[in-house]
Formats: sequence, structure tokens, C-alpha cells
Amino acid sequence: MAFQSFEVTSNPANGAPRVAALREKMAALGLDGFLVPRADEHQGEYVPPRAQRLGWLTGFTGSAGAALILKDKAYIFVDGRYELQVRAQTDPAVFSYESLVSNPPHVFLADHGKGLRIGFDPWLHTIAETKALAAALEKRGGSLVPVAENLVDLIWDDQPDAPKGPVSIQPARFAGREARDKIAEMQQAVAASGADATVLTDPSSVAWVFNIRGKDVSNTPLPLSFAIIPAKGEPELFIDEAKLDIEPRAYLTQLARLLPPQDLEKSLAARAKSGEAILLDSSLAAEKLRLIVETAGGKVIDGRDPARLPRAVKNKAELDGSRAAHERDGVAMVNFLSWLDTQPPGTIDEITAAQKLEEARAKAGNDFQMPLEDISFDTISGAGPNGAIIHYRVNTETNRTLNDGELFLLDSGAQYRDGTTDITRTVPVGAIKPETVRAFTLVLKGMIAISTARFPAGTRGQDLDVLARIALWKHGFDYAHGTGHGVGSYLAVHEGPQRLAKTGTQELLPGMILSNEPGYYKPGHFGIRIENLIIVTEPKVPAGGDIAMMGFETLTYCPIDRRLIDVTLLTQEERDWLNDYHAKVYARLSGHLDEATRKWLEWATAPL
Amino acid sequence: MAFQSFEVTSNPANGAPRVAALREKMAALGLDGFLVPRADEHQGEYVPPRAQRLGWLTGFTGSAGAALILKDKAYIFVDGRYELQVRAQTDPAVFSYESLVSNPPHVFLADHGKGLRIGFDPWLHTIAETKALAAALEKRGGSLVPVAENLVDLIWDDQPDAPKGPVSIQPARFAGREARDKIAEMQQAVAASGADATVLTDPSSVAWVFNIRGKDVSNTPLPLSFAIIPAKGEPELFIDEAKLDIEPRAYLTQLARLLPPQDLEKSLAARAKSGEAILLDSSLAAEKLRLIVETAGGKVIDGRDPARLPRAVKNKAELDGSRAAHERDGVAMVNFLSWLDTQPPGTIDEITAAQKLEEARAKAGNDFQMPLEDISFDTISGAGPNGAIIHYRVNTETNRTLNDGELFLLDSGAQYRDGTTDITRTVPVGAIKPETVRAFTLVLKGMIAISTARFPAGTRGQDLDVLARIALWKHGFDYAHGTGHGVGSYLAVHEGPQRLAKTGTQELLPGMILSNEPGYYKPGHFGIRIENLIIVTEPKVPAGGDIAMMGFETLTYCPIDRRLIDVTLLTQEERDWLNDYHAKVYARLSGHLDEATRKWLEWATAPL
Repeated sequence: MAFQSFEVTSNPANGAPRVAALREKMAALGLDGFLVPRADEHQGEYVPPRAQRLGWLTGFTGSAGAALILKDKAYIFVDGRYELQVRAQTDPAVFSYESLVSNPPHVFLADHGKGLRIGFDPWLHTIAETKALAAALEKRGGSLVPVAENLVDLIWDDQPDAPKGPVSIQPARFAGREARDKIAEMQQAVAASGADATVLTDPSSVAWVFNIRGKDVSNTPLPLSFAIIPAKGEPELFIDEAKLDIEPRAYLTQLARLLPPQDLEKSLAARAKSGEAILLDSSLAAEKLRLIVETAGGKVIDGRDPARLPRAVKNKAELDGSRAAHERDGVAMVNFLSWLDTQPPGTIDEITAAQKLEEARAKAGNDFQMPLEDISFDTISGAGPNGAIIHYRVNTETNRTLNDGELFLLDSGAQYRDGTTDITRTVPVGAIKPETVRAFTLVLKGMIAISTARFPAGTRGQDLDVLARIALWKHGFDYAHGTGHGVGSYLAVHEGPQRLAKTGTQELLPGMILSNEPGYYKPGHFGIRIENLIIVTEPKVPAGGDIAMMGFETLTYCPIDRRLIDVTLLTQEERDWLNDYHAKVYARLSGHLDEATRKWLEWATAPL
Repeated sequence: MAFQSFEVTSNPANGAPRVAALREKMAALGLDGFLVPRADEHQGEYVPPRAQRLGWLTGFTGSAGAALILKDKAYIFVDGRYELQVRAQTDPAVFSYESLVSNPPHVFLADHGKGLRIGFDPWLHTIAETKALAAALEKRGGSLVPVAENLVDLIWDDQPDAPKGPVSIQPARFAGREARDKIAEMQQAVAASGADATVLTDPSSVAWVFNIRGKDVSNTPLPLSFAIIPAKGEPELFIDEAKLDIEPRAYLTQLARLLPPQDLEKSLAARAKSGEAILLDSSLAAEKLRLIVETAGGKVIDGRDPARLPRAVKNKAELDGSRAAHERDGVAMVNFLSWLDTQPPGTIDEITAAQKLEEARAKAGNDFQMPLEDISFDTISGAGPNGAIIHYRVNTETNRTLNDGELFLLDSGAQYRDGTTDITRTVPVGAIKPETVRAFTLVLKGMIAISTARFPAGTRGQDLDVLARIALWKHGFDYAHGTGHGVGSYLAVHEGPQRLAKTGTQELLPGMILSNEPGYYKPGHFGIRIENLIIVTEPKVPAGGDIAMMGFETLTYCPIDRRLIDVTLLTQEERDWLNDYHAKVYARLSGHLDEATRKWLEWATAPL
């Protein structure tokens, strides 16, 4: 078993004939262009092979992007982290490249879409996105035209089938709450919004509400499915019955009416026809759903997916599960890091390291009798300059040896039944230059500033982000990503709405899990990132204080490399935090290690 | 001469007969209620005596608030800082009190306005405010009814006349830019917004664009006036000619057509009738202006006052002027503080201190041949528990002695031709308890964190606010106000759009002036606030860094009381900043002091 593949799967040569075939379909419909986003109809980060239309058409396999195929030009839109990758994976004779950030399709079309009829698949674009695209085109006399069948599907002969991963029940001892209770909460939220029903379009929301998990996509245990939750009456769950074994089928039958996915349109249209108002989250729900509702005479109410916030606030069972998962994951990390430390510089490569880490996780899962179900994302295993590529994914062509005098950045995570983990450690290979140690220490200062923060009710993620950056900023450094993302409970490793970032407008609430991962990247040289997961704690009045303050409990147990720390740059408070953290890591993990590894951990966690 | 009065001017007994008289006028118009806001038609912080309708009607003289007079009930809405004051100044038999923050009039009316016809003066409410009020009432079957003449004016027999303060020209050596150039910039902004003209409703904008100042209200050198700036053609300035001496009249005639204020309606209606689109800032412009435009068939375009951002970004002449003003103000502060230090505890009271400080400012103005034109707000002179009242204004009834063992908080500022100042210092009277010293040191840590911050382009005020709070938060303390506000250039001491606060969404730009004023308040015991003004500096790459970073230059020169600092709570960086700051204060001011005061300053700025 191995969850991660390091094969090079894309072939730039496929681009030209596939784009040519697509253009024939465009012509047949009288279209001047067609949009191919990376998303599937659920708008998740991971999409099944069947829905990897952007990758199949262009060769580009990044986790975000879009293509716009015009009659005589073709564009791929990617963000800064994929600028190099998109050029390596696609044919520059066929494609031009645009910034997904400064010049996304709706901005590009406002400039270049004069009079164009652009086709799109309304299942693959959100309501909000469609609105922006249509407005851009209409301003220039063009139009956005929904197609009945995706044009890529028409030309993709060996398109894989939709996945049929088996559904499992997430037991109450991990979920901490009965599905019936969550359904009742959803129904109240629907009623409070003034709607008669909502469509849950995010499979994470379906999974959370019904306490089920699946195996339809890699890295996240999602059962791809939709659900309609009415304010009153029985929910409807639209899921392929092939995914349901006897037990989950019996379980789900008590909670909802089970219907095949293709019945969603019929069922929703019937509700709309009878005058129902449907709550849809315009930032998550497919434009197609809006079309179904409004075409049938129903009314769409725009509002947040009602499962989004309750899912983010973990209950005691979920938090306890996550604590156990992180202890287990820490054992795997320490087994791996202590092994790595014994390997001479120049002998290990990025793929070997990632494989060895996956083995360590699998072994820890077996030892603790809580198997590794998946890795929570493809491990970022970056040596030397590869560490500076923020979303680097090693493959057999880019694979690099861990050389003497370089940093090695390792960002990885696991999916266990009781919790999802995500951890980054940066370690030295041989001797490291003082300016690199200084940079590591500045990143660490930011990471400690978040770890030790206290804050009153009402504080949003964006209010705290600067704490992780100010030490870097003072030296003229920064990192081009957020400081932290929400993390699911045996669900998506990237989960909203909470964020530690300039865009983090969600108030932090006790029980939310976030990552704390400042970094620093010197392109062509090295990358540094240090990442722990943290829980927002209950408000408590500090001794002698006036106001109850929340804070963060650190979930991750794994040493931070002391060889990369310049102690003279730390304040006493920072040093105290680090020594205290290391003492906790040792106390928590040492009983689960063999003697040699325990010795290594003792050394790795000795006070500074 | 004295700019500040300490008289108690309000008499609660006036409330009952005045409200009764108002109710007769309401009845005559068939109204169920009438709104009396604190604002005048320019929505500024300071309003002339003629427009102090809320104070005249109710007795409440705070700087923010509103009254709603119904047939049988009357409500005053104030924020937390005025909860005590409103009860002392008004008759509780006549008025009930509501929160301006959690239950402002538009929220209150949504609950209590069922079927009510509520009158309002559309000159005194912004477009945005009116929209919210009307929506609240209409939801409950009520209506918001504009009145032709303010009902308070109808019953206020001895209502003062509109002010006729003389207008002066702000010379180019202080303004740094010709008015003609600013007018051209305004015209471009109007054209870019798609409008044909805009109305400048904020007298600060009029003053800035035309390089004039006035004497119509206390504390801010405003010429109360409106201006219409067309995208093309001659601007119109609506100002009482009685304010214009020969020189300013000749100057302004070259820039604009001068018209009496009462012609604004006619002129705007004529433009609207001819189909012009008028740019109005819905958060600043009176509803009346919208009514004029739309009634005459014109179109309103909602957008920001085009002078707001350019005014906030000071040019070199304005910054140099502010630096000079702050040096002069520092001399005044040091003369005052050294004098105060020689007074035995229990001998000085808050009013004496405020008067003495004003004298010191007047003397410094004379000595430097740049007279004190005004104080920039009524000095907050708060001893002991009075220091805990954030917006305390001492009067003869509340006046308190500076007693042994207590803190004394002094927040004050000056208006000089070359700049506006605002400074807070908190000093000990006799011996101070260690926990108070600890609290002062925590406030200082926050103030230093802002002073030493560096940040990249795009950083907003809200991104930095936490730096001023985190040391307090860790001890369970906080302060219920923003960390900093914008400051004008010989204009309003509170100026937008820049802010250091959770609500500070404006990007910080080089040349903006802000206050940096964290605090801590223990109700019934003491208040602490330390405030310097700071300038956002040009981006510059720190030595060895990658990215250009902005930062802050400190404008204020005045020692921070070393007796209140627990050095063991400071990091080395914080201590270095303080010692460096004190060295600069000494270098800048010592040459302007007599020998005894110089000695005192040497002691006050000695390294810690």
C-alpha cells in the first residue's frame, strides 16, 4: 500500500489534439469559447479522476486553475505557486498563461470578451462565479451560455466512471453528536433563513451532518453526494447506492430518503415548482442548482451553508480524537526524523523520505490499532531549492537528494478515523549557514507568537495574522500564504470558514482547529516552514486580569529542530515556550518509542 | 485668552418644557415622533452653537448621540463612554436611555416603530443613515417623514446665528500644493466615477481643496461651507461672504464662483434638472442633497468623497510642518510636566493643570513665532478614577485634586498653522503601586510594538491593531477604543479614512499621520494611556531583507514617565527603542529649555 504516487502523469503533447477536438464541439454549438475549470460539481479541493477535465485537456495537474479555450487561442489561468509547473506540464505552443489572481477569467473576459459567446458547464461554476463571468461578458456585448453536456466529456473517450467508494459510518465516539441532532440543527437554520429547504452541495457538509465518510477522492474521506434538507420533513440524500453496503444503507435509511444522484434535479425542480424558497450558498453551490430552482419558478435565498460553522467548531469527542491522532502522528514523525538524522548527507532523496514517512505513519497506525486511512494530502518533500516552492509535489523527474548544507522541508499529514493531522518540520542536512538559522528563528518567533496568543471574544483570524509575520517583516521578509487554515475532523485538511490570514473574517470560536504555519522562502535556495495544529481554547480570565481570553492549545507533538535556532534572537518568553513545548513532546511520546529513538527525542527536546 | 471652558453649561430642568414644546410642533404636523441627532449638515465632530440642538433640547453635551422624541416617551441614545454623563446632564423623568451602539435609532425603531410617522430633518442625517431608518420603519408599517424646517429651530427662540468666523488662506509653504492642482485632481476623480459633479459636504474637504481655514467651530479650523466640483468647468463655493475679508475673497474668486450657502439647493437642482449625475458620499452627505438631486430628475452616484484619501496622505511641506509643530508642542509639554513634578501631591487640581498646559502651549507658540491658534480638542485632564473615564471632560463640578499615590492622565493637543498635535501622557503623583506600574508597562509594550512595526504595501490599519494589544491580552486586559486615528494638517484632529483599529480597512500609505495610543482603564481606580503621533514612512528594504517595508516615524517629542516602567517586563528591543526615543527627545528639545527644565529633561530621558 502507498497513498502517494510520484509518477509523472501528464504529457504536454496531448494538449494540441484535445483542444482541437474541443474546438469542433464549440463550433457545433456556435460558441466562441469554452471554460474548463478545475472544480467538479462539489467545488472541493480534491476531485475524482472523472472530473479532472482541466488536467486531461491541458496536462496541468495543479490544485487550482482554469482554462479558457477560444477559437484561435487557449489560456490557462494559474496562481503564482504554479507558474513554473504549468509551463512544464503543458504545451506553450497551444496555451498562453495568465494569472488566476490578478487576471482571472472574469477579469480577462471583461477586457478580451468583446461580443463573444462563451460556453460553460453550470455544474462546475458557483453562482457567485457565474454572476461575475456573465457580468464581464455582458458589459462587452458578449454572453455566457450554459451547455447541456460538458464539452470535454463529449471528447474524452476513456473518461473514468464516477467513483463508487464505499461509505462508512463515523461512529458516535468520534463524531460526538448524533446525526439526528445535526439534522435538526440544519432544519432550524433553514427555517431561520426564511427558506423551505437547502441543498448541501459540499460533501464535507453531507459527511458531517449524516456522520458518514467515504472513499471517492484521494486524501479526504468524502462520499461525493448531495442532500436536500427541508425546514420540515424528511431529508433527501442523493448518493449512488453502489457505495452503500448493508449497514450504512440501513443506518442512512433511518435518517433520509435515499435517491440516486441523477434525481437531484427532478426533486429540486418539484420543490421549486410548488413555490419553495431554496437556501443556496452562492460561494459554494453550482449555478446549475440556481437555474433549476429559478427555471421551475422557485426562489433562491443566498446564505451560508448551514453546516459550515457548526462543523468547524469541534466537540469534545472530536477534540479528544484529534489529540489521540496527533500523539500517534507524533510517534510516526519522531520515528521518521530520528531515522533521517542517522542518514549521511547525500544518501536520501525526497521520494525515499516521503515513502519512509508514510511507512512510519502506517506502522504507528497499526501499533495504536487506529489504522492510517490515507494521507491528508500529497507530502511536500522539498530539499534545498525545492523547499522554496510552496506547493511542491515531488515526482520522479524533480526528485532531489538531501545534500550537505541544505534544508529539508517536509509538510505532511494523515487521515485517521479519530482525526486529521497536518504538520511541517524543516530540518538541517549537515551544517547550515548562520543567515539560514536566523531566518528559521524569525519564522519560529512568529509561530510561537500565535501559539502564545490570548484574545477576547470577537477576535477574527485576520486580527492575529500579523503576530506570525512581524518578526519577519522587521527583517524585510514575508511569506506569500496565509498563516493558518481550518482542519476537519477525519475530513478535509483544508476546511473553512476559520482562517489565520488577512482574509480571515470569521471570528475564532472555542473548539475550532487551525494550522499555525508561518514560513520563509528564498527562491532557488531554501524553504522554511514550521507548522503545528492548534485548538481555540475556552475563554478564561488570566490571573489578575479583567477579561476572559481565549488562546490556543497545541495539538501537534514533534520537536522543532534546535540546530536551526539562534537563541540570542529569542525573548525569554519565547524560549520558555519552546522549552515547555519540548518537555510536553517528550512526556507525551517517549513511552511509545524504542530506546534508541527515545534517546534521540531526549536530545531533540533538551532545554535551550 | 483661554480656549477651554470648564463651566457646567447644561441644566436638566430645561428638558421637560422644551420637549413639551417640540411635541406641539410634532402634533401640528401629524407626526408621532421626531429625531434630533447631534450632527449638523456637515456631519463633523464639532458643530457650532447654532447646531447644538441635541444639547439645547436635552442637556446632553457629549460628542455623539441622538434623541428620539415620541408622543409620550423620549429616548436619548449614547455610547458606553457617556452612560454616566447623560444621566447627570438630563432629566430621567423626561428621558429614557438607550445604547447608541447595540440599539441605535434604526434598530430601536425596527422594534418599536410599528406604524409610526417619524419626522426628521434631512439636512442632519446622511444618505446611508436615512436609508437604514426608513427601512426599519417601513418594515413595521411606519414611515420616515422629512420636515421642511427643523422642529427644534421652531421652538428655540434664542438660537444663535450661524457662525461667521473669518476665513484665512493656508499658505503654500504649509499646504505644499496649490489649490488649482487639487481642484484638477478632484475633477479627474469626479469624471472617473462617471459623475458630472460632486458636492463636497465635509468642510475639511473644502478647506483642504481650496487651501483655506476658518473659525466657525471650536478646536478645528473649519470654514463651514459646501462646494460643487464639476468634472469640467468652474467650481462653486457656497460660503457666507461675511466670512471673507478682501484677501481671501480675491484669492477664492480666482478658484471658484462664490455663492451664498442658501444657493446650494438651487444650483444643485439646476444641474440635476439638466440630467447631470452627482457623486455623493452616502456615509457623509446629507439625505437632503440626495432628495434635491433625485427630485429634480438627476442621478446620484454613490462614492467616496474624492478629497478624503488625498487629504490623508500628507506631502513633504505638511510633514515638515507637523514635525516643527511637534517640536514646539514637545517644548510646551516638557515645560508643563517639569513644573507639575515640582508641585506637592494634593496641591494641584485637574482644571489648574489643563489651564497651565494651555498657557505653556501659548508661550511656546509665541516663543517660536507660530501662535497657538486653538487647542485641538478639550483637554482630558483626569486624576485618579477620573482617568478611567475614557472621554472625560473636567468641569467645575467634577474637578479633582491630583492626590498622592494616584495616576494623572493628560490627553491634549494644539492647532498651529503648520500642524495639529495630539499627545497623551500618564504621570505618577507620589508613589505608585507595583500592579499599576505593571499595567503601565504593558500599555507601553503595545505602544512600542506599533512604533517599531515594519509592514509591506497593502497592510491595513486593522492588520496592525493587535500589536498594541497582545501584551495586555496576555494579562487579561484590553481597552475599549481603537489604537489610532488619522490626524489632519491644521485640520481635524480626528480624520479618516486611516485608522489603527479592528475597523481600519484602509491601507496605510506613506505620509499618513496617525495616533498610536493604547491604554488601560480600571474603572473607579485609574486610567493609563500613552499617545504619540506617527507618520507612515516610505517603503524601504531592510538591510539583508527581500521586500520593501513601510514603518512609522514618531512625530511626538516628550518623555514617557520612567517611574511607571517595570524594566524587567521589557524585551531588549523594547528597552532599546525607549532609550533611543528618549535620546531623540532630549536632542530635539533641550536647546529650547531653561536650565532647570533642561536638567529635568535630562533626568526624565536618562537611559533605562
